[in-house]
Amino acid sequence: MTYCVGIKVKAGLVFASDSRTNAGVDQVSTYSKMHVFERPGERVFVVLSAGNLATSQAVIHRLRREFKAATGVGLAAVGDVFEAAEHLGDVSYRVQKEHADALERSGVSAEASFIIGGEVAGAGQEICLVYPQGNYISATPETPYLQTGETKYGKPILDRIVAADTTLDDAARCALVSLDSTIRANISVGPPLDLAICVAGDLRVSRRLTLAGDSPLYAGIQQGWNEGLKRAFLELPRFEWERGAA
Amino acid sequence: MTYCVGIKVKAGLVFASDSRTNAGVDQVSTYSKMHVFERPGERVFVVLSAGNLATSQAVIHRLRREFKAATGVGLAAVGDVFEAAEHLGDVSYRVQKEHADALERSGVSAEASFIIGGEVAGAGQEICLVYPQGNYISATPETPYLQTGETKYGKPILDRIVAADTTLDDAARCALVSLDSTIRANISVGPPLDLAICVAGDLRVSRRLTLAGDSPLYAGIQQGWNEGLKRAFLELPRFEWERGAA
Repeated sequence: MTYCVGIKVKAGLVFASDSRTNAGVDQVSTYSKMHVFERPGERVFVVLSAGNLATSQAVIHRLRREFKAATGVGLAAVGDVFEAAEHLGDVSYRVQKEHADALERSGVSAEASFIIGGEVAGAGQEICLVYPQGNYISATPETPYLQTGETKYGKPILDRIVAADTTLDDAARCALVSLDSTIRANISVGPPLDLAICVAGDLRVSRRLTLAGDSPLYAGIQQGWNEGLKRAFLELPRFEWERGAA
Repeated sequence: MTYCVGIKVKAGLVFASDSRTNAGVDQVSTYSKMHVFERPGERVFVVLSAGNLATSQAVIHRLRREFKAATGVGLAAVGDVFEAAEHLGDVSYRVQKEHADALERSGVSAEASFIIGGEVAGAGQEICLVYPQGNYISATPETPYLQTGETKYGKPILDRIVAADTTLDDAARCALVSLDSTIRANISVGPPLDLAICVAGDLRVSRRLTLAGDSPLYAGIQQGWNEGLKRAFLELPRFEWERGAA
């Protein structure tokens, strides 16, 4: 499995993903799921991938080839992030169809989903979730984040913390906490964690971090969050019978 | 959907469940999912039900009929909680089979799962999760809780707080926080919340609460937890670039 989250706040975009892939429990590997397409000052896209690894790698390879060749198609040519999401959806759907019959006979799903966000000069920042079927939804001020993969464990903290006016650094920290909650609960999601921040108008990846499981920052966030939660728990109101006993 | 959690600590057992049932989004109702079978001083069982409502109601009705008749079968006769779980599994599997063909043709699942816990005099407390297939697992000191229904949102807090030596009141509070996290994230889970506590050796339900969505205790826990989480979040370590900026 996988867990990826993208957040859009007024100040910019945050992308975070884990690096664990598995086929069953005895084939577990580490692959980064974060892919950057960047022409600094002109356009930047960050793509997070989840689902069938062969599908998502094939999609990323095709996008890279197009981006390098700059033949007037693909992420180098689109006018905004919505067009980029549409193109990514097309490529993904085509790749899935190529192997769908063979995979189906083996009982394997070819499906992959993606989060793509970024900015094209003059067109503003956006972030979209591209479904395996090729269609997509975008984040809005009311629901400023998008998740894919193993999404449930890490959702409560996003719901409580992230709003359109959250600072970019707080949104990034919240993404790491959301990933940490997922990693603790589910062995199919694991470090290293990839984090990217795109400040609005920067037209590049403004900050990029890869956090190993034992990196001081990640360890500090894990420990701080664990202790903070325990403190918060101890301060909760008591039951009536406990107050009587005190 | 549904969310039920049962916890076994050294001091006793905690049971908690929501009360929302739904068939699609336009048929949403309130049903308690907590069922008590009690002969104070001799035996007590608390059953939490999730899944097909017709199945779980039929199972509970049969168990009640047996329990009243006391004909030497059922929860009135079993020697411990494991036997009770086995019997519950048998009854559940039989009920599901009766309607399985008709339901399958309508594309509806007859499946239901249950958490059953309690104590029979002389046999000690146990808590078990009964699968739709009729088999079961029990909680252990290493994994002192069992969940059924919409389990993922509420798992991280259980993993962080509950251990075998957690106090009974803290375990109960943690169950409510776990339910609250689920309710906030998923509209198929909702109040009122049912809570039952069985002190080890008490051989009865020692404490029982039903918390409406606007009850002062539940509102206090919601608010306290929300504020506590935000405080914990604000105290997390900063990124290097933030420290530079300060």
